[in-house]
Amino acid sequence: MSYIITKAESVNKALDSAVPLREPLKIHEAMRYSLLAGGKRVRPVLCIAACELVGGDESTAMPAACAVEMIHTMSLIHDDLPCMDNDDLRRGKPTNHKVFGEDVAVLAGDALLSFAFEHLALATSSDVVSPVRVVRAIGELAKAIGTEGLVAGQVVDISSEGLDLNDVGLEHLEYIHLHKTAALLEASAVLGAIVGGGSDDEIERLRKFARCIGLLFQVVDDILDVTKSSKELGKTAGKDLIADKLTYPKIMGLEKSREFAEKLNKEARDQLLGFDSDKAAPLLALANYIAYRQN
Amino acid sequence: MSYIITKAESVNKALDSAVPLREPLKIHEAMRYSLLAGGKRVRPVLCIAACELVGGDESTAMPAACAVEMIHTMSLIHDDLPCMDNDDLRRGKPTNHKVFGEDVAVLAGDALLSFAFEHLALATSSDVVSPVRVVRAIGELAKAIGTEGLVAGQVVDISSEGLDLNDVGLEHLEYIHLHKTAALLEASAVLGAIVGGGSDDEIERLRKFARCIGLLFQVVDDILDVTKSSKELGKTAGKDLIADKLTYPKIMGLEKSREFAEKLNKEARDQLLGFDSDKAAPLLALANYIAYRQN
Repeated sequence: MSYIITKAESVNKALDSAVPLREPLKIHEAMRYSLLAGGKRVRPVLCIAACELVGGDESTAMPAACAVEMIHTMSLIHDDLPCMDNDDLRRGKPTNHKVFGEDVAVLAGDALLSFAFEHLALATSSDVVSPVRVVRAIGELAKAIGTEGLVAGQVVDISSEGLDLNDVGLEHLEYIHLHKTAALLEASAVLGAIVGGGSDDEIERLRKFARCIGLLFQVVDDILDVTKSSKELGKTAGKDLIADKLTYPKIMGLEKSREFAEKLNKEARDQLLGFDSDKAAPLLALANYIAYRQN
Repeated sequence: MSYIITKAESVNKALDSAVPLREPLKIHEAMRYSLLAGGKRVRPVLCIAACELVGGDESTAMPAACAVEMIHTMSLIHDDLPCMDNDDLRRGKPTNHKVFGEDVAVLAGDALLSFAFEHLALATSSDVVSPVRVVRAIGELAKAIGTEGLVAGQVVDISSEGLDLNDVGLEHLEYIHLHKTAALLEASAVLGAIVGGGSDDEIERLRKFARCIGLLFQVVDDILDVTKSSKELGKTAGKDLIADKLTYPKIMGLEKSREFAEKLNKEARDQLLGFDSDKAAPLLALANYIAYRQN
Protein backbone atom coordinates (compact mmCIF):
# COMPACT_ATOMS: atom_id res chain seq x y z
CA MET A 1 0.00 0.00 0.00
CA SER A 2 2.85 2.42 0.68
CA TYR A 3 3.67 2.34 -3.06
CA ILE A 4 0.15 3.53 -3.85
CA ILE A 5 0.24 6.26 -1.20
CA THR A 6 3.66 7.53 -2.28
CA LYS A 7 2.66 7.65 -5.92
CA ALA A 8 -0.67 9.29 -5.11
CA GLU A 9 1.22 12.05 -3.31
CA SER A 10 3.47 12.62 -6.33
CA VAL A 11 0.36 12.79 -8.50
CA ASN A 12 -1.24 15.37 -6.20
CA LYS A 13 1.84 17.57 -6.47
CA ALA A 14 1.99 17.20 -10.25
CA LEU A 15 -1.72 18.06 -10.63
CA ASP A 16 -1.27 21.11 -8.42
CA SER A 17 1.48 22.49 -10.67
CA ALA A 18 -0.16 21.41 -13.93
CA VAL A 19 -3.23 23.57 -13.25
CA PRO A 20 -1.99 26.67 -11.39
CA LEU A 21 -4.34 29.40 -10.25
CA ARG A 22 -4.21 32.10 -12.92
CA GLU A 23 -6.48 34.36 -15.00
CA PRO A 24 -9.37 33.93 -15.60
CA LEU A 25 -9.44 33.09 -11.89
CA LYS A 26 -12.96 31.67 -11.58
CA ILE A 27 -12.52 28.89 -14.11
CA HIS A 28 -9.15 27.85 -12.69
CA GLU A 29 -10.60 27.88 -9.17
CA ALA A 30 -13.41 25.62 -10.37
CA MET A 31 -11.01 23.23 -12.12
CA ARG A 32 -8.71 23.07 -9.10
CA TYR A 33 -11.60 22.68 -6.65
CA SER A 34 -12.56 19.32 -8.13
CA LEU A 35 -9.16 18.20 -9.41
CA LEU A 36 -7.46 18.66 -6.03
CA ALA A 37 -10.39 17.41 -3.91
CA GLY A 38 -8.59 14.25 -2.92
CA GLY A 39 -9.70 10.87 -4.14
CA LYS A 40 -7.67 7.67 -4.28
CA ARG A 41 -5.89 8.55 -7.55
CA VAL A 42 -6.34 4.93 -8.66
CA ARG A 43 -6.11 5.82 -12.36
CA PRO A 44 -2.89 7.86 -12.29
CA VAL A 45 -1.22 5.37 -9.92
CA LEU A 46 -2.21 2.55 -12.30
CA CYS A 47 -0.74 4.57 -15.18
CA ILE A 48 2.57 5.07 -13.38
CA ALA A 49 2.73 1.44 -12.19
CA ALA A 50 2.13 0.21 -15.75
CA CYS A 51 4.87 2.49 -17.05
CA GLU A 52 7.33 1.28 -14.41
CA LEU A 53 6.36 -2.34 -15.06
CA VAL A 54 7.48 -2.08 -18.68
CA GLY A 55 10.71 -0.30 -17.70
CA GLY A 56 9.74 3.39 -17.74
CA ASP A 57 10.12 6.07 -15.06
CA GLU A 58 7.51 7.79 -12.93
CA SER A 59 8.41 11.15 -14.51
CA THR A 60 7.82 9.76 -18.00
CA ALA A 61 4.30 8.66 -17.06
CA MET A 62 3.36 11.72 -15.01
CA PRO A 63 1.79 13.85 -17.78
CA ALA A 64 -0.29 10.83 -18.90
CA ALA A 65 -1.16 10.08 -15.26
CA CYS A 66 -2.34 13.67 -14.71
CA ALA A 67 -4.29 13.54 -17.98
CA VAL A 68 -6.33 10.48 -16.95
CA GLU A 69 -7.13 12.08 -13.59
CA MET A 70 -8.24 15.29 -15.36
CA ILE A 71 -10.58 13.19 -17.50
CA HIS A 72 -11.89 11.34 -14.45
CA THR A 73 -12.54 14.68 -12.70
CA MET A 74 -14.24 16.11 -15.79
CA SER A 75 -16.58 13.13 -15.94
CA LEU A 76 -17.48 13.52 -12.26
CA ILE A 77 -18.22 17.25 -12.67
CA HIS A 78 -20.47 16.68 -15.69
CA ASP A 79 -22.16 13.58 -14.23
CA ASP A 80 -23.01 15.50 -11.04
CA LEU A 81 -24.85 18.27 -12.97
CA PRO A 82 -28.58 18.80 -12.22
CA CYS A 83 -29.47 17.65 -15.76
CA MET A 84 -27.49 14.42 -15.19
CA ASP A 85 -27.33 12.66 -11.78
CA ASN A 86 -28.08 15.87 -9.86
CA ASP A 87 -25.68 15.25 -6.97
CA ASP A 88 -25.09 17.89 -4.31
CA LEU A 89 -22.17 16.20 -2.60
CA ARG A 90 -19.00 14.55 -3.85
CA ARG A 91 -16.39 13.21 -1.42
CA GLY A 92 -18.18 15.04 1.38
CA LYS A 93 -17.88 18.43 -0.34
CA PRO A 94 -20.50 20.38 -2.32
CA THR A 95 -20.32 19.44 -6.00
CA ASN A 96 -18.68 21.80 -8.49
CA HIS A 97 -21.91 23.35 -9.79
CA LYS A 98 -23.13 23.94 -6.22
CA VAL A 99 -20.08 26.10 -5.58
CA PHE A 100 -19.41 27.74 -8.96
CA GLY A 101 -22.76 27.50 -10.76
CA GLU A 102 -23.83 25.16 -13.53
CA ASP A 103 -22.40 27.29 -16.33
CA VAL A 104 -18.91 27.35 -14.85
CA ALA A 105 -19.14 23.63 -13.98
CA VAL A 106 -19.85 22.74 -17.62
CA LEU A 107 -16.94 24.93 -18.72
CA ALA A 108 -14.58 23.58 -16.04
CA GLY A 109 -15.28 20.08 -17.36
CA ASP A 110 -14.67 21.19 -20.94
CA ALA A 111 -11.43 22.90 -19.95
CA LEU A 112 -10.17 19.82 -18.05
CA LEU A 113 -11.07 17.65 -21.03
CA SER A 114 -9.09 19.71 -23.50
CA PHE A 115 -6.26 20.36 -21.06
CA ALA A 116 -5.78 16.61 -20.55
CA PHE A 117 -4.87 16.34 -24.24
CA GLU A 118 -2.75 19.48 -24.16
CA HIS A 119 -0.81 18.22 -21.16
CA LEU A 120 -0.32 14.74 -22.60
CA ALA A 121 0.80 16.19 -25.94
CA LEU A 122 3.09 18.96 -24.69
CA ALA A 123 4.37 17.85 -21.26
CA THR A 124 5.36 14.29 -22.14
CA SER A 125 9.14 14.34 -22.57
CA SER A 126 9.94 14.20 -26.28
CA ASP A 127 13.48 13.06 -25.37
CA VAL A 128 12.15 9.87 -23.80
CA VAL A 129 8.88 9.16 -25.61
CA SER A 130 8.73 9.12 -29.41
CA PRO A 131 6.00 11.29 -30.99
CA VAL A 132 4.51 8.12 -32.55
CA ARG A 133 3.84 6.82 -29.04
CA VAL A 134 2.41 10.15 -27.91
CA VAL A 135 -0.03 10.16 -30.85
CA ARG A 136 -1.02 6.58 -30.03
CA ALA A 137 -1.57 7.48 -26.38
CA ILE A 138 -3.76 10.44 -27.40
CA GLY A 139 -5.88 8.17 -29.59
CA GLU A 140 -6.32 5.68 -26.72
CA LEU A 141 -7.28 8.40 -24.25
CA ALA A 142 -9.80 9.92 -26.66
CA LYS A 143 -11.45 6.54 -27.27
CA ALA A 144 -11.86 6.02 -23.53
CA ILE A 145 -13.84 9.26 -23.25
CA GLY A 146 -16.20 9.36 -26.23
CA THR A 147 -18.89 7.09 -27.60
CA GLU A 148 -16.71 4.02 -27.10
CA GLY A 149 -15.99 4.96 -23.48
CA LEU A 150 -17.28 7.19 -20.67
CA VAL A 151 -19.91 8.98 -22.75
CA ALA A 152 -21.33 5.67 -24.04
CA GLY A 153 -21.53 4.30 -20.49
CA GLN A 154 -23.21 7.42 -19.13
CA VAL A 155 -25.74 7.73 -21.97
CA VAL A 156 -26.78 4.06 -21.68
CA ASP A 157 -26.89 4.36 -17.87
CA ILE A 158 -29.16 7.42 -18.10
CA SER A 159 -31.53 5.73 -20.52
CA SER A 160 -31.67 2.59 -18.32
CA GLU A 161 -33.24 4.39 -15.36
CA GLY A 162 -36.59 2.91 -14.44
CA LEU A 163 -36.12 -0.08 -16.72
CA ASP A 164 -37.47 -3.40 -15.51
CA LEU A 165 -34.81 -5.92 -14.47
CA ASN A 166 -36.45 -8.40 -16.84
CA ASP A 167 -35.84 -6.04 -19.75
CA VAL A 168 -32.13 -5.77 -19.21
CA GLY A 169 -29.69 -8.43 -18.19
CA LEU A 170 -26.12 -9.00 -17.13
CA GLU A 171 -24.83 -8.00 -20.55
CA HIS A 172 -26.47 -4.60 -20.26
CA LEU A 173 -25.03 -4.01 -16.79
CA GLU A 174 -21.60 -5.07 -17.97
CA TYR A 175 -21.83 -2.71 -20.96
CA ILE A 176 -22.39 0.21 -18.61
CA HIS A 177 -19.53 -0.71 -16.26
CA LEU A 178 -17.11 -1.55 -19.05
CA HIS A 179 -17.69 1.93 -20.46
CA LYS A 180 -18.28 4.04 -17.36
CA THR A 181 -15.53 2.55 -15.21
CA ALA A 182 -13.30 0.08 -17.02
CA ALA A 183 -12.60 2.14 -20.17
CA LEU A 184 -10.66 4.87 -18.37
CA LEU A 185 -8.85 2.39 -16.12
CA GLU A 186 -7.91 0.52 -19.28
CA ALA A 187 -6.66 3.75 -20.87
CA SER A 188 -4.70 4.56 -17.70
CA ALA A 189 -2.77 1.30 -17.84
CA VAL A 190 -2.40 1.40 -21.63
CA LEU A 191 -1.12 4.99 -21.63
CA GLY A 192 1.43 4.12 -18.96
CA ALA A 193 2.61 1.12 -20.96
CA ILE A 194 2.77 3.11 -24.20
CA VAL A 195 4.83 6.01 -22.87
CA GLY A 196 6.94 3.57 -20.83
CA GLY A 197 8.07 1.89 -24.04
CA GLY A 198 6.10 -1.35 -23.62
CA SER A 199 5.78 -3.88 -26.45
CA ASP A 200 2.39 -4.43 -28.11
CA ASP A 201 2.04 -7.67 -26.15
CA GLU A 202 2.80 -5.94 -22.84
CA ILE A 203 0.36 -3.16 -23.66
CA GLU A 204 -2.43 -5.67 -24.40
CA ARG A 205 -1.82 -7.66 -21.22
CA LEU A 206 -2.01 -4.47 -19.16
CA ARG A 207 -5.19 -3.52 -21.01
CA LYS A 208 -6.80 -6.84 -19.98
CA PHE A 209 -5.53 -6.45 -16.43
CA ALA A 210 -7.12 -3.01 -16.14
CA ARG A 211 -10.40 -4.14 -17.70
CA CYS A 212 -10.66 -6.95 -15.14
CA ILE A 213 -10.00 -4.69 -12.18
CA GLY A 214 -12.47 -2.18 -13.63
CA LEU A 215 -15.27 -4.75 -13.49
CA LEU A 216 -13.94 -6.10 -10.18
CA PHE A 217 -14.18 -2.64 -8.66
CA GLN A 218 -17.83 -2.41 -9.61
CA VAL A 219 -18.78 -5.90 -8.43
CA VAL A 220 -17.15 -5.28 -5.05
CA ASP A 221 -18.89 -1.90 -4.81
CA ASP A 222 -22.26 -3.56 -5.42
CA ILE A 223 -21.55 -6.31 -2.85
CA LEU A 224 -20.49 -3.80 -0.19
CA ASP A 225 -23.64 -1.79 -0.79
CA VAL A 226 -25.82 -4.72 0.35
CA THR A 227 -23.56 -6.28 3.01
CA LYS A 228 -22.18 -3.29 4.93
CA SER A 229 -23.81 -0.68 7.14
CA SER A 230 -23.69 3.01 6.22
CA LYS A 231 -21.25 3.57 9.08
CA GLU A 232 -18.81 1.00 7.77
CA LEU A 233 -19.05 2.36 4.22
CA GLY A 234 -18.85 6.05 5.09
CA LYS A 235 -21.77 6.59 2.73
CA THR A 236 -25.42 5.55 2.58
CA ALA A 237 -25.60 1.74 2.42
CA GLY A 238 -28.35 0.06 0.42
CA LYS A 239 -28.52 3.21 -1.74
CA ASP A 240 -28.53 1.16 -4.91
CA LEU A 241 -31.47 -0.94 -3.71
CA ILE A 242 -33.49 2.14 -2.81
CA ALA A 243 -32.65 3.85 -6.10
CA ASP A 244 -33.64 0.65 -7.91
CA LYS A 245 -30.25 0.61 -9.60
CA LEU A 246 -29.01 -2.38 -11.51
CA THR A 247 -26.40 -4.25 -9.46
CA TYR A 248 -24.63 -7.60 -9.64
CA PRO A 249 -26.23 -9.00 -6.45
CA LYS A 250 -29.63 -8.07 -7.84
CA ILE A 251 -29.02 -9.83 -11.15
CA MET A 252 -26.95 -12.87 -10.10
CA GLY A 253 -27.38 -13.04 -6.34
CA LEU A 254 -24.80 -12.36 -3.61
CA GLU A 255 -23.00 -15.71 -3.69
CA LYS A 256 -22.51 -15.71 -7.45
CA SER A 257 -21.38 -12.07 -7.29
CA ARG A 258 -18.66 -13.08 -4.80
CA GLU A 259 -17.54 -15.91 -7.07
CA PHE A 260 -17.49 -13.53 -10.03
CA ALA A 261 -15.32 -11.08 -8.06
CA GLU A 262 -12.86 -13.85 -7.24
CA LYS A 263 -12.77 -14.92 -10.89
CA LEU A 264 -12.07 -11.36 -12.05
CA ASN A 265 -9.29 -10.93 -9.48
CA LYS A 266 -7.65 -14.15 -10.67
CA GLU A 267 -7.98 -13.13 -14.32
CA ALA A 268 -6.39 -9.79 -13.53
CA ARG A 269 -3.50 -11.42 -11.66
CA ASP A 270 -2.96 -13.89 -14.51
CA GLN A 271 -2.17 -11.02 -16.87
CA LEU A 272 0.82 -10.14 -14.69
CA LEU A 273 2.40 -13.63 -14.80
CA GLY A 274 4.71 -12.88 -17.70
CA PHE A 275 6.26 -9.88 -15.95
CA ASP A 276 9.05 -9.70 -13.37
CA SER A 277 7.25 -10.48 -10.11
CA ASP A 278 9.00 -7.76 -8.09
CA LYS A 279 8.01 -5.12 -10.60
CA ALA A 280 4.47 -6.51 -10.83
CA ALA A 281 3.97 -6.30 -7.05
CA PRO A 282 2.37 -2.82 -7.03
CA LEU A 283 -0.25 -3.86 -9.58
CA LEU A 284 -0.92 -7.08 -7.70
CA ALA A 285 -1.41 -5.04 -4.54
CA LEU A 286 -3.77 -2.74 -6.41
CA ALA A 287 -5.90 -5.69 -7.58
CA ASN A 288 -6.02 -7.20 -4.08
CA TYR A 289 -6.79 -3.82 -2.55
CA ILE A 290 -9.80 -3.49 -4.88
CA ALA A 291 -10.92 -7.08 -4.30
CA TYR A 292 -10.67 -7.17 -0.51
CA ARG A 293 -11.49 -3.59 0.52
CA GLN A 294 -14.18 -3.27 3.17
CA ASN A 295 -15.48 0.18 2.23
CA MET B 1 -16.51 32.16 -53.53
CA SER B 2 -16.76 28.91 -55.51
CA TYR B 3 -13.56 27.73 -53.77
CA ILE B 4 -15.25 28.17 -50.39
CA ILE B 5 -18.45 26.39 -51.51
CA THR B 6 -16.58 23.47 -53.08
CA LYS B 7 -14.42 22.99 -50.00
CA ALA B 8 -17.41 23.31 -47.67
CA GLU B 9 -19.11 20.49 -49.58
CA SER B 10 -16.05 18.25 -49.18
CA VAL B 11 -16.04 19.05 -45.47
CA ASN B 12 -19.72 18.14 -45.15
CA LYS B 13 -19.05 14.76 -46.75
CA ALA B 14 -16.02 14.12 -44.55
CA LEU B 15 -17.93 15.02 -41.37
CA ASP B 16 -20.79 12.72 -42.39
CA SER B 17 -18.43 9.74 -42.69
CA ALA B 18 -16.32 10.67 -39.66
CA VAL B 19 -19.33 10.42 -37.32
CA PRO B 20 -21.53 7.61 -38.69
CA LEU B 21 -24.81 6.65 -37.05
CA ARG B 22 -24.04 3.68 -34.81
CA GLU B 23 -24.66 2.32 -31.31
CA PRO B 24 -25.43 3.87 -28.88
CA LEU B 25 -27.81 5.50 -31.38
CA LYS B 26 -29.09 8.42 -29.32
CA ILE B 27 -25.71 10.02 -28.68
CA HIS B 28 -24.62 9.66 -32.31
CA GLU B 29 -27.94 11.12 -33.46
CA ALA B 30 -27.37 14.08 -31.15
CA MET B 31 -23.79 14.59 -32.36
CA ARG B 32 -24.81 14.35 -36.02
CA TYR B 33 -27.85 16.62 -35.52
CA SER B 34 -25.65 19.59 -34.65
CA LEU B 35 -22.55 18.66 -36.62
CA LEU B 36 -24.42 18.27 -39.91
CA ALA B 37 -26.82 21.18 -39.37
CA GLY B 38 -25.19 23.28 -42.07
CA GLY B 39 -23.26 26.41 -41.28
CA LYS B 40 -20.68 28.16 -43.40
CA ARG B 41 -17.81 25.82 -42.46
CA VAL B 42 -15.51 28.86 -42.25
CA ARG B 43 -13.09 27.12 -39.86
CA PRO B 44 -12.52 23.89 -41.82
CA VAL B 45 -12.28 25.80 -45.12
CA LEU B 46 -9.70 28.10 -43.54
CA CYS B 47 -7.80 25.03 -42.33
CA ILE B 48 -7.76 23.48 -45.81
CA ALA B 49 -6.85 26.78 -47.51
CA ALA B 50 -3.95 27.28 -45.09
CA CYS B 51 -2.72 23.75 -45.78
CA GLU B 52 -2.90 24.26 -49.54
CA LEU B 53 -1.20 27.64 -49.26
CA VAL B 54 1.91 26.05 -47.73
CA GLY B 55 1.91 23.25 -50.32
CA GLY B 56 -0.26 20.54 -48.72
CA ASP B 57 -3.30 18.70 -50.10
CA GLU B 58 -6.96 18.95 -49.12
CA SER B 59 -6.93 15.31 -48.00
CA THR B 60 -3.99 15.94 -45.67
CA ALA B 61 -5.86 18.74 -43.93
CA MET B 62 -9.27 17.05 -43.83
CA PRO B 63 -9.00 15.33 -40.41
CA ALA B 64 -7.78 18.61 -38.86
CA ALA B 65 -10.53 20.50 -40.71
CA CYS B 66 -13.18 18.11 -39.34
CA ALA B 67 -11.65 18.37 -35.87
CA VAL B 68 -11.97 22.17 -35.72
CA GLU B 69 -15.60 21.96 -36.90
CA MET B 70 -16.32 19.33 -34.21
CA ILE B 71 -14.91 21.72 -31.60
CA HIS B 72 -16.93 24.63 -32.99
CA THR B 73 -20.11 22.48 -32.85
CA MET B 74 -19.33 21.33 -29.31
CA SER B 75 -18.95 24.93 -28.17
CA LEU B 76 -22.30 25.88 -29.76
CA ILE B 77 -24.10 22.93 -28.07
CA HIS B 78 -22.69 23.77 -24.64
CA ASP B 79 -23.14 27.55 -25.05
CA ASP B 80 -26.82 27.06 -25.97
CA LEU B 81 -27.57 25.10 -22.75
CA PRO B 82 -30.18 26.55 -20.36
CA CYS B 83 -27.48 27.12 -17.73
CA MET B 84 -25.41 29.08 -20.28
CA ASP B 85 -27.03 31.30 -22.99
CA ASN B 86 -30.33 29.37 -22.89
CA ASP B 87 -31.01 29.45 -26.65
CA ASP B 88 -33.92 27.54 -28.17
CA LEU B 89 -32.97 28.03 -31.79
CA ARG B 90 -29.72 27.66 -33.71
CA ARG B 91 -29.61 28.14 -37.48
CA GLY B 92 -33.41 28.08 -37.53
CA LYS B 93 -33.58 24.64 -35.87
CA PRO B 94 -34.31 23.73 -32.23
CA THR B 95 -31.07 23.59 -30.25
CA ASN B 96 -29.54 20.24 -29.33
CA HIS B 97 -30.87 20.11 -25.76
CA LYS B 98 -34.38 21.02 -26.98
CA VAL B 99 -34.39 17.89 -29.15
CA PHE B 100 -32.31 15.42 -27.11
CA GLY B 101 -32.50 16.74 -23.56
CA GLU B 102 -29.89 18.60 -21.56
CA ASP B 103 -28.11 15.49 -20.35
CA VAL B 104 -27.54 14.15 -23.86
CA ALA B 105 -26.56 17.62 -25.10
CA VAL B 106 -23.80 17.86 -22.47
CA LEU B 107 -22.59 14.38 -23.41
CA ALA B 108 -22.79 15.06 -27.17
CA GLY B 109 -20.53 18.05 -26.62
CA ASP B 110 -18.09 15.99 -24.55
CA ALA B 111 -18.06 13.26 -27.19
CA LEU B 112 -17.40 15.73 -30.02
CA LEU B 113 -14.63 17.32 -27.98
CA SER B 114 -12.80 14.06 -27.40
CA PHE B 115 -13.55 12.77 -30.90
CA ALA B 116 -11.93 15.85 -32.43
CA PHE B 117 -8.62 14.80 -30.84
CA GLU B 118 -9.13 11.14 -31.72
CA HIS B 119 -9.81 12.01 -35.34
CA LEU B 120 -6.88 14.42 -35.60
CA ALA B 121 -4.54 11.89 -33.99
CA LEU B 122 -5.65 8.75 -35.81
CA ALA B 123 -7.05 9.89 -39.19
CA THR B 124 -4.25 12.26 -40.19
CA SER B 125 -2.12 10.35 -42.69
CA SER B 126 1.08 9.24 -40.97
CA ASP B 127 2.65 8.77 -44.42
CA VAL B 128 2.34 12.47 -45.19
CA VAL B 129 2.44 14.18 -41.79
CA SER B 130 5.18 13.40 -39.27
CA PRO B 131 3.99 12.47 -35.75
CA VAL B 132 5.90 15.48 -34.41
CA ARG B 133 3.61 17.72 -36.42
CA VAL B 134 0.51 15.82 -35.31
CA VAL B 135 1.48 16.27 -31.65
CA ARG B 136 2.09 19.97 -32.26
CA ALA B 137 -1.30 20.31 -33.96
CA ILE B 138 -3.00 18.58 -31.01
CA GLY B 139 -1.35 20.99 -28.59
CA GLU B 140 -2.51 23.98 -30.66
CA LEU B 141 -6.08 22.69 -30.88
CA ALA B 142 -6.25 22.01 -27.15
CA LYS B 143 -5.01 25.52 -26.32
CA ALA B 144 -7.72 27.02 -28.51
CA ILE B 145 -10.41 25.25 -26.46
CA GLY B 146 -9.41 25.57 -22.82
CA THR B 147 -8.64 28.44 -20.49
CA GLU B 148 -6.50 30.16 -23.13
CA GLY B 149 -9.28 29.85 -25.73
CA LEU B 150 -13.02 29.22 -26.04
CA VAL B 151 -13.59 28.43 -22.37
CA ALA B 152 -11.78 31.61 -21.27
CA GLY B 153 -13.87 33.70 -23.68
CA GLN B 154 -17.14 32.15 -22.58
CA VAL B 155 -16.42 32.40 -18.85
CA VAL B 156 -15.43 36.07 -19.11
CA ASP B 157 -18.43 36.78 -21.36
CA ILE B 158 -20.80 35.17 -18.84
CA SER B 159 -19.38 37.15 -15.95
CA SER B 160 -19.60 40.41 -17.95
CA GLU B 161 -23.38 40.32 -18.28
CA GLY B 162 -25.01 43.34 -16.75
CA LEU B 163 -21.69 45.13 -16.32
CA ASP B 164 -21.66 48.87 -16.84
CA LEU B 165 -19.96 50.08 -20.03
CA ASN B 166 -17.85 52.37 -17.88
CA ASP B 167 -16.53 49.39 -15.95
CA VAL B 168 -15.21 47.56 -18.97
CA GLY B 169 -13.53 48.90 -22.05
CA LEU B 170 -12.31 47.98 -25.47
CA GLU B 171 -9.64 45.73 -24.03
CA HIS B 172 -12.24 43.66 -22.22
CA LEU B 173 -14.39 43.32 -25.36
CA GLU B 174 -11.33 42.33 -27.39
CA TYR B 175 -10.36 39.71 -24.79
CA ILE B 176 -13.76 38.04 -25.19
CA HIS B 177 -13.66 38.05 -29.00
CA LEU B 178 -10.03 36.98 -29.21
CA HIS B 179 -10.91 33.94 -27.09
CA LYS B 180 -14.48 33.15 -28.13
CA THR B 181 -14.03 33.65 -31.87
CA ALA B 182 -10.45 34.30 -32.94
CA ALA B 183 -8.74 31.47 -30.99
CA LEU B 184 -10.42 28.64 -32.92
CA LEU B 185 -10.03 30.46 -36.26
CA GLU B 186 -6.36 30.87 -35.38
CA ALA B 187 -6.10 27.17 -34.55
CA SER B 188 -7.85 26.29 -37.81
CA ALA B 189 -5.28 28.15 -39.91
CA VAL B 190 -2.36 27.01 -37.76
CA LEU B 191 -3.42 23.34 -37.87
CA GLY B 192 -3.74 23.51 -41.65
CA ALA B 193 -0.29 25.06 -41.96
CA ILE B 194 1.26 22.54 -39.55
CA VAL B 195 -0.10 19.41 -41.26
CA GLY B 196 0.56 20.98 -44.67
CA GLY B 197 4.26 21.14 -43.86
CA GLY B 198 4.52 24.91 -43.41
CA SER B 199 7.64 26.56 -41.96
CA ASP B 200 7.47 28.22 -38.54
CA ASP B 201 7.39 31.59 -40.26
CA GLU B 202 4.50 30.55 -42.52
CA ILE B 203 2.60 29.13 -39.55
CA GLU B 204 2.98 32.39 -37.61
CA ARG B 205 1.87 34.56 -40.53
CA LEU B 206 -1.24 32.41 -40.96
CA ARG B 207 -1.88 32.65 -37.22
CA LYS B 208 -1.84 36.47 -37.44
CA PHE B 209 -4.03 36.39 -40.54
CA ALA B 210 -6.64 34.25 -38.76
CA ARG B 211 -6.55 36.38 -35.61
CA CYS B 212 -7.23 39.51 -37.68
CA ILE B 213 -10.16 37.98 -39.53
CA GLY B 214 -11.49 36.64 -36.23
CA LEU B 215 -11.73 40.17 -34.83
CA LEU B 216 -12.86 41.49 -38.21
CA PHE B 217 -15.76 39.05 -38.22
CA GLN B 218 -16.93 40.33 -34.86
CA VAL B 219 -16.58 44.03 -35.70
CA VAL B 220 -18.57 43.55 -38.93
CA ASP B 221 -21.21 41.56 -37.02
CA ASP B 222 -21.59 44.39 -34.52
CA ILE B 223 -21.82 47.01 -37.30
CA LEU B 224 -24.45 45.03 -39.21
CA ASP B 225 -26.52 44.68 -36.04
CA VAL B 226 -27.00 48.46 -35.80
CA THR B 227 -27.09 49.36 -39.52
CA LYS B 228 -29.27 46.66 -41.10
CA SER B 229 -32.93 45.77 -40.75
CA SER B 230 -33.98 42.37 -39.39
CA LYS B 231 -35.16 41.44 -42.91
CA GLU B 232 -31.76 42.15 -44.43
CA LEU B 233 -29.95 40.25 -41.69
CA GLY B 234 -32.27 37.25 -41.58
CA LYS B 235 -32.21 37.60 -37.79
CA THR B 236 -33.37 40.15 -35.23
CA ALA B 237 -31.52 43.42 -35.85
CA GLY B 238 -30.57 45.62 -32.93
CA LYS B 239 -30.56 42.50 -30.73
CA ASP B 240 -27.25 43.47 -29.18
CA LEU B 241 -28.57 46.92 -28.24
CA ILE B 242 -31.67 45.47 -26.63
CA ALA B 243 -29.69 42.82 -24.76
CA ASP B 244 -27.31 45.55 -23.62
CA LYS B 245 -24.39 43.60 -25.04
CA LEU B 246 -20.96 45.10 -25.42
CA THR B 247 -20.32 45.96 -29.08
CA TYR B 248 -17.72 47.93 -31.03
CA PRO B 249 -20.18 50.65 -32.18
CA LYS B 250 -21.25 51.13 -28.56
CA ILE B 251 -17.69 51.52 -27.34
CA MET B 252 -16.01 53.40 -30.22
CA GLY B 253 -18.92 54.64 -32.33
CA LEU B 254 -19.99 53.52 -35.81
CA GLU B 255 -17.45 55.48 -37.86
CA LYS B 256 -14.46 54.36 -35.83
CA SER B 257 -15.77 50.78 -35.94
CA ARG B 258 -15.79 50.93 -39.74
CA GLU B 259 -12.23 52.28 -39.78
CA PHE B 260 -11.17 49.53 -37.40
CA ALA B 261 -12.74 46.88 -39.69
CA GLU B 262 -10.83 48.32 -42.66
CA LYS B 263 -7.60 48.30 -40.65
CA LEU B 264 -8.09 44.65 -39.62
CA ASN B 265 -8.85 43.61 -43.20
CA LYS B 266 -5.65 45.29 -44.40
CA GLU B 267 -3.61 43.72 -41.60
CA ALA B 268 -5.02 40.31 -42.52
CA ARG B 269 -4.22 40.79 -46.21
CA ASP B 270 -0.69 41.98 -45.37
CA GLN B 271 0.07 38.61 -43.79
CA LEU B 272 -0.50 36.97 -47.19
CA LEU B 273 1.98 39.19 -49.09
CA GLY B 274 4.90 36.79 -48.80
CA PHE B 275 2.95 33.91 -50.35
CA ASP B 276 2.32 33.07 -54.00
CA SER B 277 -0.60 35.35 -54.91
CA ASP B 278 -2.52 32.68 -56.85
CA LYS B 279 -2.38 30.30 -53.92
CA ALA B 280 -3.28 33.07 -51.48
CA ALA B 281 -6.40 34.02 -53.48
CA PRO B 282 -8.84 31.81 -51.49
CA LEU B 283 -7.74 33.31 -48.17
CA LEU B 284 -7.93 36.81 -49.64
CA ALA B 285 -11.46 36.05 -50.80
CA LEU B 286 -12.32 34.76 -47.31
CA ALA B 287 -11.09 37.99 -45.70
CA ASN B 288 -13.00 40.16 -48.18
CA TYR B 289 -16.10 38.02 -47.79
CA ILE B 290 -16.00 38.60 -44.04
CA ALA B 291 -15.27 42.32 -44.40
CA TYR B 292 -17.88 43.19 -47.01
CA ARG B 293 -20.73 40.82 -46.24
CA GLN B 294 -24.13 42.47 -45.87
CA ASN B 295 -25.72 39.92 -43.53
